[in-house]
Parts: sequence; structure tokens; C-alpha cells
Amino acid sequence: MIIQSPQFRIGILGASGYSGGQLLRLLLRHTGVAVGPLFANSSVGADVATLHPDLRGRVDAKFEPWNLEKASSCNLIFLALPSGEALPLLPLLAERGVKVIDLGGDFRLKDAAAYQQFYRRAHTATEYLSKAVYGLPEWNTGEIAAAEVIANPGCYPTSVLLPLLPLVAAGVIDLDCIIIHSMSGTTGAGRSASAELSFSEVAGNVRAYRVGDHQHLPEIEQALGRVAGTEVTVAFTPHLIPVERGIVTTMTLGLRRPITHQQLGELYHQHYSNKPFVRWSPERIPDLRGVVGTNFIDIGYRLDPRTGRLTLMSAIDNLLKGAAGQAVQNMNIQLGFDETEGLL
Amino acid sequence: MIIQSPQFRIGILGASGYSGGQLLRLLLRHTGVAVGPLFANSSVGADVATLHPDLRGRVDAKFEPWNLEKASSCNLIFLALPSGEALPLLPLLAERGVKVIDLGGDFRLKDAAAYQQFYRRAHTATEYLSKAVYGLPEWNTGEIAAAEVIANPGCYPTSVLLPLLPLVAAGVIDLDCIIIHSMSGTTGAGRSASAELSFSEVAGNVRAYRVGDHQHLPEIEQALGRVAGTEVTVAFTPHLIPVERGIVTTMTLGLRRPITHQQLGELYHQHYSNKPFVRWSPERIPDLRGVVGTNFIDIGYRLDPRTGRLTLMSAIDNLLKGAAGQAVQNMNIQLGFDETEGLL
Amino acid sequence: MIIQSPQFRIGILGASGYSGGQLLRLLLRHTGVAVGPLFANSSVGADVATLHPDLRGRVDAKFEPWNLEKASSCNLIFLALPSGEALPLLPLLAERGVKVIDLGGDFRLKDAAAYQQFYRRAHTATEYLSKAVYGLPEWNTGEIAAAEVIANPGCYPTSVLLPLLPLVAAGVIDLDCIIIHSMSGTTGAGRSASAELSFSEVAGNVRAYRVGDHQHLPEIEQALGRVAGTEVTVAFTPHLIPVERGIVTTMTLGLRRPITHQQLGELYHQHYSNKPFVRWSPERIPDLRGVVGTNFIDIGYRLDPRTGRLTLMSAIDNLLKGAAGQAVQNMNIQLGFDETEGLL
Amino acid sequence: MIIQSPQFRIGILGASGYSGGQLLRLLLRHTGVAVGPLFANSSVGADVATLHPDLRGRVDAKFEPWNLEKASSCNLIFLALPSGEALPLLPLLAERGVKVIDLGGDFRLKDAAAYQQFYRRAHTATEYLSKAVYGLPEWNTGEIAAAEVIANPGCYPTSVLLPLLPLVAAGVIDLDCIIIHSMSGTTGAGRSASAELSFSEVAGNVRAYRVGDHQHLPEIEQALGRVAGTEVTVAFTPHLIPVERGIVTTMTLGLRRPITHQQLGELYHQHYSNKPFVRWSPERIPDLRGVVGTNFIDIGYRLDPRTGRLTLMSAIDNLLKGAAGQAVQNMNIQLGFDETEGLL
Repeated sequence: MIIQSPQFRIGILGASGYSGGQLLRLLLRHTGVAVGPLFANSSVGADVATLHPDLRGRVDAKFEPWNLEKASSCNLIFLALPSGEALPLLPLLAERGVKVIDLGGDFRLKDAAAYQQFYRRAHTATEYLSKAVYGLPEWNTGEIAAAEVIANPGCYPTSVLLPLLPLVAAGVIDLDCIIIHSMSGTTGAGRSASAELSFSEVAGNVRAYRVGDHQHLPEIEQALGRVAGTEVTVAFTPHLIPVERGIVTTMTLGLRRPITHQQLGELYHQHYSNKPFVRWSPERIPDLRGVVGTNFIDIGYRLDPRTGRLTLMSAIDNLLKGAAGQAVQNMNIQLGFDETEGLL
Repeated sequence: MIIQSPQFRIGILGASGYSGGQLLRLLLRHTGVAVGPLFANSSVGADVATLHPDLRGRVDAKFEPWNLEKASSCNLIFLALPSGEALPLLPLLAERGVKVIDLGGDFRLKDAAAYQQFYRRAHTATEYLSKAVYGLPEWNTGEIAAAEVIANPGCYPTSVLLPLLPLVAAGVIDLDCIIIHSMSGTTGAGRSASAELSFSEVAGNVRAYRVGDHQHLPEIEQALGRVAGTEVTVAFTPHLIPVERGIVTTMTLGLRRPITHQQLGELYHQHYSNKPFVRWSPERIPDLRGVVGTNFIDIGYRLDPRTGRLTLMSAIDNLLKGAAGQAVQNMNIQLGFDETEGLL
Repeated sequence: MIIQSPQFRIGILGASGYSGGQLLRLLLRHTGVAVGPLFANSSVGADVATLHPDLRGRVDAKFEPWNLEKASSCNLIFLALPSGEALPLLPLLAERGVKVIDLGGDFRLKDAAAYQQFYRRAHTATEYLSKAVYGLPEWNTGEIAAAEVIANPGCYPTSVLLPLLPLVAAGVIDLDCIIIHSMSGTTGAGRSASAELSFSEVAGNVRAYRVGDHQHLPEIEQALGRVAGTEVTVAFTPHLIPVERGIVTTMTLGLRRPITHQQLGELYHQHYSNKPFVRWSPERIPDLRGVVGTNFIDIGYRLDPRTGRLTLMSAIDNLLKGAAGQAVQNMNIQLGFDETEGLL
Repeated sequence: MIIQSPQFRIGILGASGYSGGQLLRLLLRHTGVAVGPLFANSSVGADVATLHPDLRGRVDAKFEPWNLEKASSCNLIFLALPSGEALPLLPLLAERGVKVIDLGGDFRLKDAAAYQQFYRRAHTATEYLSKAVYGLPEWNTGEIAAAEVIANPGCYPTSVLLPLLPLVAAGVIDLDCIIIHSMSGTTGAGRSASAELSFSEVAGNVRAYRVGDHQHLPEIEQALGRVAGTEVTVAFTPHLIPVERGIVTTMTLGLRRPITHQQLGELYHQHYSNKPFVRWSPERIPDLRGVVGTNFIDIGYRLDPRTGRLTLMSAIDNLLKGAAGQAVQNMNIQLGFDETEGLL
């Protein structure tokens, strides 16, 4: 058990993975919370520093086996688990009054049929689909502050929604022409033994995957539809690229009406001027170098006078703004801390 | 001078660069040509093996200064130069009856104004814009066989046109909805001293560049327009990714009429069944691992029933099918060799 | 079954791995052999092109289950298997008169106790330890030509022995001061599902491993001792670095007597002037760029007047000169082909 | 000008480079100093966030031209310049009573002749060679606290000296057998336009460089000699590897007398038990993953019973413990802050 401050006790389940490790690093820097226990599955009994070697000498703790009673003594539990594994656990925690932030995809969709279609398994805790708040802090602050259960957004959806939602909200975008192309590093796939994700296979390689049926597709459409007030269907093609961390998304968008770079800047200013982690610019093209290691999202935009379309680009660190950083941002809102605590 | 066979003598100008080096390696394997002289600029006097160290012990030659007389004694000269540098040289060679294959972009566009707009310089040899044959072997075999001057296609256009042209020719594609996203390795930028292309900046990074104004854009549109019989405007966004070699292109395309995977396969079969370097499949998603080191283009396609659009994907080695390999393929057609000589 | 020429039929067991795939590519270029069957284990039934996608369209065959009878109809079988798996198979083939080249380590050591110590398993076919010829072509040509069973050298030993043996043979080296430091890419570990070898863990990382007890250590010492005529003990530290292919070895060596760069060059000339795959130079420092994709070994050497020691360096492609390339070189010697057939 | 706290004002010259940027990031986290001005050369006038894009939105400042008067108003100036450029500037600052920490190599050697030999230029401020304190905090705390001018150690020497000095001090090491192999990422070469350091050349490549004459060699020997009380000559071979950040050093060392792993651990405990940035272990082999992004040095050691030698290994982040982190550690000692302030 690592105790920093008595105010709130925060547990992590899945602390041995990449997202779990990032959570741990962020919470250690946080001035208002005590971290622990650190639950894991296959790594139970191992020193935390074995799997997160940069923490050697700073964290003297072992991964513990999951224990509902211990978990129930926490104020808040982060679930950083492979898809499906939160289904049986989240309800148990919620019933015991523990706040939960789930970094996985099990409670993001409102529609159990879409879950079954894209996650390829039945949803077994459907009553929590409606209870869970979608934790996109720049858009749902009020709901997040009051939430018992937060579904932390997926990495791709975060990279898509933050640049796109202000334009959809303003009615600028032709909803029939939303073409999304994303490129992700390998930590997005989690820490796992897979020949497909070995260095020998990934280095020097690039490939699209789950073309047209990625599980983040319905999450993107649900969030866009909620703001648009109508069903939205998008084209989304994710690619695996040989970097460890980061997502770059490039969208090509039809426009309902002419707009200028200045008006686009005003829309972003209107929505995000008081949002500490959103940066936008018509000049600078977002890249990973600007965001990896930070909780920022960088947004760039270029009107194409030749096609009359808009090229909208973003970059995030998939483990921070795309996972653990955003989760801590949500925790800060829930627990009443400054939104940036532990994140700068 | 490296002499292998007396049949044809082939010179290279720009032999010290990445494309020039690939040309040299391919021609060394070719059974019907003698290679040399190897002209260079800043590397004049250096051993060839200094810049292409894998050729140590196999090529005992030095880079020579450009010499029109020497060049004129060749049957064919490859120009592998930075943009603009072929403008004064190509006419001199053509006038002397030397066949020329230009790997650069100076003679690909028919429209001098488009050249000026996208290459940011005036064209000074416009009479050769019409004389030059666009060297896309799978589409212009007859013209190539008879050509004196060949403009070898750009790497991005090759990756776009080979998958797309059969569908445009068949009238399948909605020409108002052609959205192209491409990702290229760093050798596409040539061998150059640039802080922007240093390992420290490129590794772990991904970024779009020249959004909406890349010089390959008018080349793509010109070739599509020629087959479509009408002007075509596309959205094209290139990205730099941390790999040395290869281009992956993902296109999202509107359809004019419903089509099936089987019909798409039939279109490719119709156009490419006797083309040795085109491979296509509705199942396998193209990746760099399948094409790097080869002259193949891999094509993949997925109809998206949700959006009614087609995701069309391709992968090439930017230095082979995207440059030197395609150039040798053109040479083979011109000189009467089997199209695959030196390339398998 | 892929038939190129009727002269010799060559089978591969372990054709789905990285070394097996390289063997296949090399043998396809070979003018004197027919390749097949291609035996595999977990990939039985899969198209060859599934695992070696660059061969799509060139190899239309499936991996077959191991079948001794089929294998016995071959003139020669390459074994490209994980350590230990050749132990039961090699004797069966040898008894049936099939020549065998084993790319693994099971038959390289003469001493079964050393095998047990470093490979961590008992040797179960010890009678073949003495029968197997160590296939270092530049040193054992005669034995290789007559061999029934060849133990193809390990990748690290190849990178160490070729530069070092001429100096040991000449009595130049202080045998008490042989310090070897090697760096290898990831394909040396084979194609396998392992979290430790995932891109997320390997990219950006460097680490020594099996410090002082790597299984290639006794192989190095055995070969040095044979030439030195006395037992030799070396310090050997291998490192894993984030590249796919290649080994760079740097040795720091005590000298028994003063020597000059010119005399070192003469020693290499004496041993290797008619060896097509050895290149040496006192000026050029070997690097991977010069050897990857080739069967060459590059050797560099620098006398250090400050310490009186010699820095001896080498670079090879671990899958070619360090495995499949050297294996084909051995086959060429055995079957009477030119040593370079299929390898340039 | 970025003002955080009024206590001390700290300037940086060379703030646009990799080390300068790291200094800036560390000082922004420091609670006791105000950062600025940020002097640069070629980047004068550019926004800081242009070259350090992760700082966009956090640092609103421009790089300023060097101005001695402005610099003199600082309490301390960090020089993060290419070799040679500190020679004329450091004396001017020191004369004006500004404390200086020089991250370059110009004032590390006591011997001007050695400087000339290894840095290939004459030393023009030799009176400061003796005045400058070598800033290895774990060994020179007292001198550092009192210093006016600190020569911050080189990255390679830091990786060598911290593991080696306790053993040399204890008389354990055979000073005639110190063999050092180091591997460094590319940021060690600074931010510069060089074809040799381009991604296309470095990716997939490994090579030794400056074999036997690297400028860090006399620095290592000087520091070892001071502790040993006698001249020490070492063999040192640095290698460039395809990672952005980090150094791994592997040393093979002769021993004067038998020693155990436990005794080695005791030596480290004796020297470093109260040093916050040194971690050691006989089991864990140091790697970059454990140190990149931190100011830690990881030390590992393995006695080799076969050779009677010791393999001593270390890993650091070349930009932190190897440059900017160590520089801030020195500043903390000089200005009376806790040694870890801003560094955890």
C-alpha cells in the first residue's frame, strides 16, 4: 500500500498493464489521493517495479490478487482491464458505493446490441449501460461530477470527438461525409504476448486493421449522434504503425455551408477556451512529438478550396489523453480537484 | 564502368541517392544490360560502395561528374534527381537520341501551370511535357514501348492509380467522393541532410504534411481524369511515418452503383490478370511486410455496408514499384525485355 | 511442391519461421535445386504466402505436416527448428541417407555435458555430436563437402569466429584477453508470441541478456580452441537492440606481440582472398546497412596505441550469413555448386 | 520571460536544443526558480513551442539573442552548446559573478593538451580548467556546493563512472583491464541537420564510431585516475543505435582479488545508500525502459566464474542523468535545494 495523503483512497485493477501503469504514475504525482491496493491478474505477487521498472526505488509494493472487500474500502477504483472483464466486476463495486472509472469499453455504448455486434460477446450487466456516464470531460463535466460509474472514452474516439464535436454542434459538417483515418501505436493493444505484435512483425510495417468494424466505431457514432440530434454513420479505418505511443487522426469532412479558418478557430475558442488540455491551430499540423507524454490533444484544420472539404487532424498520447490521463481528469472532476491536478 | 553484357548500355544520373542506388542494384541483376557510367553531383569521385555499402566487393566503380558526351554514348539514361534538376538536362539527351526515363516529377504533368503551382517553379522545357509518356506500365504499355522520354510515376500516384483506375474505368466510383490518405516512409524524401528528417525527430513521430497541396496531387488527378474522360478532383493527405521504406494508401470512395466483392475481383482480373506485379485480394489487407523489397503492389478492398462506401487499400515499396523498380519495368518494355527481367 | 529444376530435391522443416522463410527465398533463386516439401508445425495447412507475404504470387504451396517418408525422398533437408527439436529427427534422416543441414544448435557442440549446461536439456543423440561437421564454410570446406550432417553455426559465433580465427591461428591474440560484446536484432529470437519481444517492449529499449551463460558461448570457445590447439575461455555479452535484422560484434583483444594494420590485412588476405563473402578493411567500421540483405560479413579493425589492444569489429545479417545464407553456402559446397549460387 | 518564483533567476543558453529543452522542462517543474531568459542562436525569434511542441500552451516565450547584460542579471546560467562555443562565453559570465553550469565538454578536462587532442581545437580559456568543478554529484557534493563554475559530466562518462568508481576506490579492479562498450541513442548527437543522422540511415542500423578516440575517453580516465590515485588507461568503444534516448554501457573488468555479489552490493550501499538517483542490483540487468524519462542510473553486475571477470552494466537517460537532469541536480546542490527538487 502506498500512502501519500489521507484524503481519498484510490485502487487500480489491472495495474500491471500499460494503462494501469500510467494511472499509477499519474496518481503518484497527485497531491490529494492515496494509491492502492494495486490489483492484477497474472502478475499477482510480483513487485510493481518488475513490470514498471522506471518506478524502482519509488514504489515498494506488490501486485495483489483481486479482493472485493479490500476494493470496497477505496473511494474510487480504476478498472484497466481487457474488454469483457469489467462486466461482472463493475456492478459489484457500484453496489458497494465505490465510484468506478472503467478504462475499457464495456460500458461505453448505450445499446447492448451494438456491444454484442462489435465486441463479439453478450453484455451481461445491461442495467449499467444507462447508468454509466461517458467520461469525455470537455463535454460532460456536469454529469461526470455527479457520476457513480464513468465509462472512460476509447483512444480513437477521443482523438475523433474532441476536434469534431464543436463542428457538428454548430451544424457545419455534412453528416453524410465523415471519413476518419487513424494511426495508432502498439501500446493501444495492451501488454500481451502475440506474434502479430512482436517487434519483428511491427517494425517497418504499417497496416490497416478491423476495416469497417472496429469496436470504437459505434462509440464514435453514438457520441456524434447525441450532439447532432440524429443518427450519424461514419467511415473509420484504423491503422497500426510502428510507434509505441500515440494516435494521429486525419478526417476528411464534407461541409454543409462555407466556413473560414477564422470561424473554425472561433468555434474551438467557444467550446475549449477554458479547457486546459485542448490546443488548436490552423497552422500547426498535429504530430505525436507535441503530445506524447502529455494529456493534451492537438487539433489542426485546413480548408481545401479545391474540394470544398475540411481536413481535420488531431494527435494524442493514447495512454494519457486516450486512457489514463483522461481517467485521472475524470477523477479530478468527480472528487472536486482541479481538473489538471497530477496531469501537468 | 561495370560491364555485364554488350547488348545495351545504361547510364544513371543521380546514382548516389536512394532511388539511384536501387536502380543500380536492379540493373546489376539484369541479364541484358551493361550499367554505367554512374553520374553524381556532390559524391563525384567517391567509391560507389561508400554510399551503397552493401555493394562493396560487387561494384568497383566511382561516381563520375556529369558528362553529356559520355551520357550520349548510352542507349538509355535514368535520371534520379531532385525536382527541377531534370529540366535542363532531359532535352539535351533526347535531342541526341538517348532514351530517357526520368524518375523525378518534372515531366509528369501535361499542364505547365499546374507544374508551376505545385512544384513552385516555372517549367523551362514545356515542349517535352507533351512528348513525355507517363510510365505506368500496367496502363500505357504501348506508348511506353514506343517512347523516347518516359516520365516515371510518383510513388504516391502509383499507390493510388493502380487500385483505383480499373474502378474509375468501369464507372463504379462517384468521382465527387475520392478521399485518399497515404503514409510514406522516409526514403521517399531522398538522401538529404535535414534536421526535420533526423532520427531524433522522426522516430516515434507521425504527421501529415503538405495537406491539400502535395505535388503528387495534380499527377493523380491528371491520370484519373484521362481514364474518366472528365476532370477529377480528389482529397489527398500524405503522412510521414517512422519506417524507411514503403507506402500504404487507404482510400474511402463513394460508389455510383452497388457492386460486390466478386465484381471488384473481376474488374481487377480483367485489367491485371496478365500483369506480373499486381496482386489483389478482398481478404488480405495490404501491408509493408508483403511488398518491401519487391516490385509488387498489393491491393485490398472492403465494401462497407454501413456507409455504402468502398475502402480501397494498397501497399508498395516506394523505392521499387514507387520508383526504381517501375523504372526498370518501363525500360524492359522499351528495350524489348521480359517485363519482369531483373525484378523478381 | 515447387519444382524449378530436377537436379536435387531440397526439403525444409520449419519453413514457416524467419530462417526457414529465408531459406525458401534463397532456394527459389537457386538454379540447381527443386524446393519442397515445406514442413511446418503449428502452421500446417496454411498457404506459404500467409506467413511470408512477399512470396504471394510466387509460391503457391501449403505448409505440410512432417512426414519422414516424404522427407526421405529429398536429397537434402534443412532443419530450421527451435533448439531441441532436431534431436529426435536428425538421426532418422541421417539413417535414411538424407543429407541434413541443421540450422539449430543441437549438433554444434562436441561435448554433451556442455550442451546440457548451456541448452538446459540432456542430449539424446550423442553419437551424432561427433559425426556432425561444423559448417563454417571459410574454415571447413573439405569436411563440409564430404559431410552427411552439417551443424550450421550460430549467428553470434559466425560474427565472432570469422574475424577472430585468422588472428588466433597466427598466434597474435592473447587468449586470456578476449572480450566480446555483441548486439543482435529481434529476428534472432525466431517468430514467437512473447510479451518480452513485443514492439512495445523492444522499441526504444536496449538490454544485455544471458550475461555470461549464452548457449553460443561454448560454441565460440570450441571453435577457437580447435584452431588455437588449447582451451580458450572468452567473455561474451550479447545485447538485444531494436532492429529486425543483423548482428554487430565488437571485440577488445589483448595482443601477444605488436602487429600493424598492414599485417592484419595480410592475415585476412591470406585466409579470405578467395572467400567470396568476407570483406575487411582497417578504415571502414562495419555496420548493419552494409550487410543486411546480403550473405557478406564485414570486418573492421583498429589498433589502439593507448592500450596496446586491438578493437575487432564485424557485422552480418543474422538471417543470412548468420543462418540461412550460410546454410545454403554449405549446401552449395556439399552438392558441388559454386559457393555463391543463389546468394548474390 | 517565464516567472514562477522570485527566489533565483536561471537563464539557459542553447535552449532550443535537446538538452536545453530538457533543462527548460525540468526547471518549469522546479518550485524554487524563475526560468529565463532563453537564449538561442539560429532559432532566435521563434516561439519556444515551435521547437519544443509539447510545451505549447505552457510556455509563451520566444528564444532571445545572446545578451551578456541580460545574462548577468541571472543567478545562474546553464550553457547547453555545441563543443567549443562555451570557451569565450564562460569566462565573461564567471567574471560577472554569475554561476555557470556548462553541459558541454569544454571545461571538463584539467589538461589543455588532452582537450586539444580529443576535441581537435586549442583551449582558449585554460585558467578556467582548474577553476571548474567536475559536477558528478554523487562524488563531489562539497565542491559542487561551493562551485562558481561547474563542468557537467558527459553522458558516457556518467554511465561509466557511477558504477565503476566505488570498485576502483575499493581497489577491486585490475586497472589494466577496463574494457568499456557503450551504446547511445541519437539525441546524444544534438539537434542537427546531418545525412548521417537521418532516419533513413539510422533506422535498422548499428555502428561503432570514434573507436579509440572519442572525446569522452580522457574524461573517463581523468575521473578514474583521481580516485585510483594513479594514471588509468581504458578501452572505450561507443556505438550509435536506433533509439532516440538512452545509453547502455557494458564493462568487462579484471579483478585484483576475488569478490562476491554480496560484497559488491555492500560497496554500492556504502557509497550510494543516501544518493537518491542510483539504483543497483545483482539480478536485474539494466535497460533503457527502466531509466528513460527519469534521472536514475541503473547498475547491474555479474561475476563470471568462468573468466574470473566482472560484467558491470549501467543504463541512463542521456538527456537527463546524462545531461540536463544531472545539471539540475548540480544546481540544486549549489543553490541549497533538495537534490531531487524538480527531478522526480
